[in-house]
Amino acid sequence: MTNAPIKVRIGIVGGAGYTGGEMIRILLNHPNADISFVHSRSNAGNPLYAVHADLLGETELTFTGELSNDIDVLFLCLGHGEARKFLEANNIAPQVKVIDLSQDFRLGETSGSREFVYGLPEMQRALIKTASNIANPGCFATGVQLGLLPLAKAGLLQEVHTTGITGSTGAGQSLQATSHFTWRANNVSTYKVLSHQHLREIRRSLQLLQPAFTGDINFVPVRGDYPRGIWITSYLTCDLSLEAAVQLYKDYYAGHPFTHVSEKQIDLKQVVNTNKCLVQLEKVGNKLVIHSIEDNLLKGASGQAVQNMNLMCGLDETAGLKLKSIVF
Amino acid sequence: MTNAPIKVRIGIVGGAGYTGGEMIRILLNHPNADISFVHSRSNAGNPLYAVHADLLGETELTFTGELSNDIDVLFLCLGHGEARKFLEANNIAPQVKVIDLSQDFRLGETSGSREFVYGLPEMQRALIKTASNIANPGCFATGVQLGLLPLAKAGLLQEVHTTGITGSTGAGQSLQATSHFTWRANNVSTYKVLSHQHLREIRRSLQLLQPAFTGDINFVPVRGDYPRGIWITSYLTCDLSLEAAVQLYKDYYAGHPFTHVSEKQIDLKQVVNTNKCLVQLEKVGNKLVIHSIEDNLLKGASGQAVQNMNLMCGLDETAGLKLKSIVF
Amino acid sequence: MTNAPIKVRIGIVGGAGYTGGEMIRILLNHPNADISFVHSRSNAGNPLYAVHADLLGETELTFTGELSNDIDVLFLCLGHGEARKFLEANNIAPQVKVIDLSQDFRLGETSGSREFVYGLPEMQRALIKTASNIANPGCFATGVQLGLLPLAKAGLLQEVHTTGITGSTGAGQSLQATSHFTWRANNVSTYKVLSHQHLREIRRSLQLLQPAFTGDINFVPVRGDYPRGIWITSYLTCDLSLEAAVQLYKDYYAGHPFTHVSEKQIDLKQVVNTNKCLVQLEKVGNKLVIHSIEDNLLKGASGQAVQNMNLMCGLDETAGLKLKSIVF
Amino acid sequence: MTNAPIKVRIGIVGGAGYTGGEMIRILLNHPNADISFVHSRSNAGNPLYAVHADLLGETELTFTGELSNDIDVLFLCLGHGEARKFLEANNIAPQVKVIDLSQDFRLGETSGSREFVYGLPEMQRALIKTASNIANPGCFATGVQLGLLPLAKAGLLQEVHTTGITGSTGAGQSLQATSHFTWRANNVSTYKVLSHQHLREIRRSLQLLQPAFTGDINFVPVRGDYPRGIWITSYLTCDLSLEAAVQLYKDYYAGHPFTHVSEKQIDLKQVVNTNKCLVQLEKVGNKLVIHSIEDNLLKGASGQAVQNMNLMCGLDETAGLKLKSIVF
Repeated sequence: MTNAPIKVRIGIVGGAGYTGGEMIRILLNHPNADISFVHSRSNAGNPLYAVHADLLGETELTFTGELSNDIDVLFLCLGHGEARKFLEANNIAPQVKVIDLSQDFRLGETSGSREFVYGLPEMQRALIKTASNIANPGCFATGVQLGLLPLAKAGLLQEVHTTGITGSTGAGQSLQATSHFTWRANNVSTYKVLSHQHLREIRRSLQLLQPAFTGDINFVPVRGDYPRGIWITSYLTCDLSLEAAVQLYKDYYAGHPFTHVSEKQIDLKQVVNTNKCLVQLEKVGNKLVIHSIEDNLLKGASGQAVQNMNLMCGLDETAGLKLKSIVF
Repeated sequence: MTNAPIKVRIGIVGGAGYTGGEMIRILLNHPNADISFVHSRSNAGNPLYAVHADLLGETELTFTGELSNDIDVLFLCLGHGEARKFLEANNIAPQVKVIDLSQDFRLGETSGSREFVYGLPEMQRALIKTASNIANPGCFATGVQLGLLPLAKAGLLQEVHTTGITGSTGAGQSLQATSHFTWRANNVSTYKVLSHQHLREIRRSLQLLQPAFTGDINFVPVRGDYPRGIWITSYLTCDLSLEAAVQLYKDYYAGHPFTHVSEKQIDLKQVVNTNKCLVQLEKVGNKLVIHSIEDNLLKGASGQAVQNMNLMCGLDETAGLKLKSIVF
Repeated sequence: MTNAPIKVRIGIVGGAGYTGGEMIRILLNHPNADISFVHSRSNAGNPLYAVHADLLGETELTFTGELSNDIDVLFLCLGHGEARKFLEANNIAPQVKVIDLSQDFRLGETSGSREFVYGLPEMQRALIKTASNIANPGCFATGVQLGLLPLAKAGLLQEVHTTGITGSTGAGQSLQATSHFTWRANNVSTYKVLSHQHLREIRRSLQLLQPAFTGDINFVPVRGDYPRGIWITSYLTCDLSLEAAVQLYKDYYAGHPFTHVSEKQIDLKQVVNTNKCLVQLEKVGNKLVIHSIEDNLLKGASGQAVQNMNLMCGLDETAGLKLKSIVF
Repeated sequence: MTNAPIKVRIGIVGGAGYTGGEMIRILLNHPNADISFVHSRSNAGNPLYAVHADLLGETELTFTGELSNDIDVLFLCLGHGEARKFLEANNIAPQVKVIDLSQDFRLGETSGSREFVYGLPEMQRALIKTASNIANPGCFATGVQLGLLPLAKAGLLQEVHTTGITGSTGAGQSLQATSHFTWRANNVSTYKVLSHQHLREIRRSLQLLQPAFTGDINFVPVRGDYPRGIWITSYLTCDLSLEAAVQLYKDYYAGHPFTHVSEKQIDLKQVVNTNKCLVQLEKVGNKLVIHSIEDNLLKGASGQAVQNMNLMCGLDETAGLKLKSIVF
């Protein structure tokens, strides 16, 4: 039938983890996606809902230990370092587009002849549309950049002070002392203060837009007492009035369907379980304050990966990504 | 154009509350729904996202203080007692189908010539399909009934012992001592023990299926330390083997797209932010244990209301209701 | 000096776990206690605060891998099965009083010549005062029994229906899927439904008071979404009026400093971080409902162990146990 | 009897609020305190446990609507602005020492002949010992200052960047949209960014120690998803090595029983429900990072008030304040 919707055939590697699960959840309801396989060596043969229990009643698909090149897009939902190894060890056909969620290719690294475009649509949508391989941005990196891109493009960045608070899903599903419920409930702690690895990709993007920027990005990452979502507050010295700054941001994000400027105070749950990013500005004295929020597993990972797929495959950028927020 | 999707024109009354907000969230992405108006006297003229902040970027619709009969379905998302008053005070055209989320019409009450069908699709889908007015079941009532319907239909019900744990959204958005974060966080308490108002509609349904049932339904409602979701554990004396009981439940729910029998232990977050209900059985000695779980605002309220609308309007029962779970 | 306070010399085995830590916290501020050693093979030589980080600034004591008999009381804070093995493998001097927090000796088991008294002061305070060895009750077992003892003593027990909700500390500090923050936060689940191991010690106690009691104790244990505290709701058929039942309970607990009858609705945080148990009664139809609450690590474990020590050593029953609740 | 402990006679005004409740909890178990009255007009005649339900079984004291001058110390646990009005409207005898928990007298304000000493023992213990009136520091102010005092004393302060995350008890017990459980659970938001009112008292203290300090204190206050505790992370450019900085802090806090320097990473629950403050340092590049944590209601309010009372009355500074942490 001529009017049948385009169907992109998809493979998912590393489908048993958090981002792999979110990928499956999104793609099962995506109008233009067919999941060809979900690869997981350790779970081969088991139904997806044996690992992702919420999928009971949604699909009878099973994990497979086999790969196939009879797909259009391959999502790599592997740990850092594992994506590189996977591409080296497996013969992925050249025409298969690869979207990698690890940090292995975010700084310009290549794998064989594969070159990777940094997949932040709000920064380089045009490049993504023609890309064959995408390095999907980090969760904190997405939130920080979406708070700063308009300033960088306007050449207004200088030393930035940033606090980022992340839900526990940011640390993955491995069992460790800091992921124990008894420890983390009602608790706060920090990690990698001023030295988080995402600073590299953040700086790289900002310097693309504002090559002269050399100021510090002082980033304090905080472990939050909840599972999902990232809150970012950045501030810097800036001469713009609040009105001018809001206009700058609204203009920058005008054509982007997932990033919006709020003129009211925002709170994290506005975006949890969605692919959206909300940005809110304040001006206090000579400091401009930028809050930006996202769901770390969606706009910060799997949702953005699907957004990139949509762009690469000529689909509506929002296809499959109009997700109901949790709200409460 | 002949192939355009059917569009049901919808009015929502009480759109500023929790269930009204969920109704809007679902219907904005429903392929066969057009929201004609969202009524709220106190918020008339304001954008929906002024109240439901997560809708920023989703819609520019505003609340209205006006009603219109130029709709197909009217959802009443009002407090208990208010739905009855609303129908008495306003001239709703007879051809407008009404779906009421309050408890005003669940026990056979009428409003003028409007008679209401109890809208539990897993019990009376055929009746719902031809109904003009629906009394949408209560949240606890839905969970308890979905745990017991197959037994009632088989005539196997006897005295039941039920614990129900609900998220804070079950108590609505009014500010009260028991909804204060400082009080409710990490806390447990009970209310209306053995005397919850939902027992009436539960008993009514069960007796429709098993008229001779007169045993007690001993229900202990618990305030849980989380916002969304209902957990129900019921048990009763029963001669069925576990295998036979599981088969009974699977047979009963075979044609129902949202209610599924799990053979593994379930946990609440499998269904949070979805319209699903999962049921799991255990047999210990001569007692049959039934766990049933749902999202109190979706399968327990607004999601089920849309499921009823789908059935009444000849749409796919699942249209607009394939929602991504929060999982974590 | 003649007026110096009595000092009980104490050894703690298994001091690196949750109950061991609570033991240390209580005893450091106990006016009549001197901690002689805290034994932990894997942590020998490290300061206590290397494991129990909150003790920084409280004490410079270190863990030891050595045991000594130069003590008055030995607390065993070991896993189930480990306490028995420990007593078999180590030569504990006969004059050392042993208080065991495991379930190894709660049903009348002995170790060599050591016989154990079940250490529930509200049931057998007189026996505890003269005991040489104590089997400290289980956490759920304490809460359920404190809700039922007065009825059993009055010979009024019959089939009981009990829901118990526990904080995550009840499952200890081992890392497992169900203790992962991402999984447990905002979640509910049950385990060992109608078959929890504490039922044995509960039944044993109740039959001591009401030998003819043979009814079922139907117990539904629930994993709660918070770290500390146990909520118990039990109900049974009972002819007593509410007033008579309240009087029965008040009379029973009159001389007991930690268990109190509340005439208002209770909530769990009234007792968290204290050694108290609060009991509240309701009468609905012919059913008597009893709510009982405690901190699972204190009245349900280490606090009760110190209460037993106080009784065994002739100290004020409340010494060291007037703990500030967390309240919020 | 000559050896009887000193007993300080105490009045509490505003005893029905959060800080008033904490004051009562501490003082009931304080070896040198007698609560003469707890004043609350709206609760006069009711037992304390009618408001502070966790006190059931602890005391039979009742609230009173009457004041008395037959006391040694009066704690004012009133809202901001109310303390000043209370002292103007009531005839408090000159010999009664006043400890005010509001912000009314923290910047040098007086009430009649009453002059107030800023009650931060780690800064001016000697002054507190001879003071007649104390302005008890704010909760955020305490945490920020304890993180910066040693640097200020060494003349090393320059522009500071500070994130502070507070539990919900910091906002008091009034019902408001941002204190609703459904809203606050799993949520993050900020308020008064770069403009929090505590900045005034912080700056005042720091300039006392380092008069030439004029740099900005950039403070981002965050609403945390838990009831109790404050996390502060501050950083600034500093030439000190980590070792030198740690030594500076250890020297500064050497004689202070509640503030300790941790050489390991800290987490908030180490101090919740205690009067302690823990400080931890990191050095990254040329930036010194200081984390400081406290319980906002104890070291940040009522605990520090009792610490001040102990100092003013010649008692052991820690009397009544060796509190068991919640830990989990």
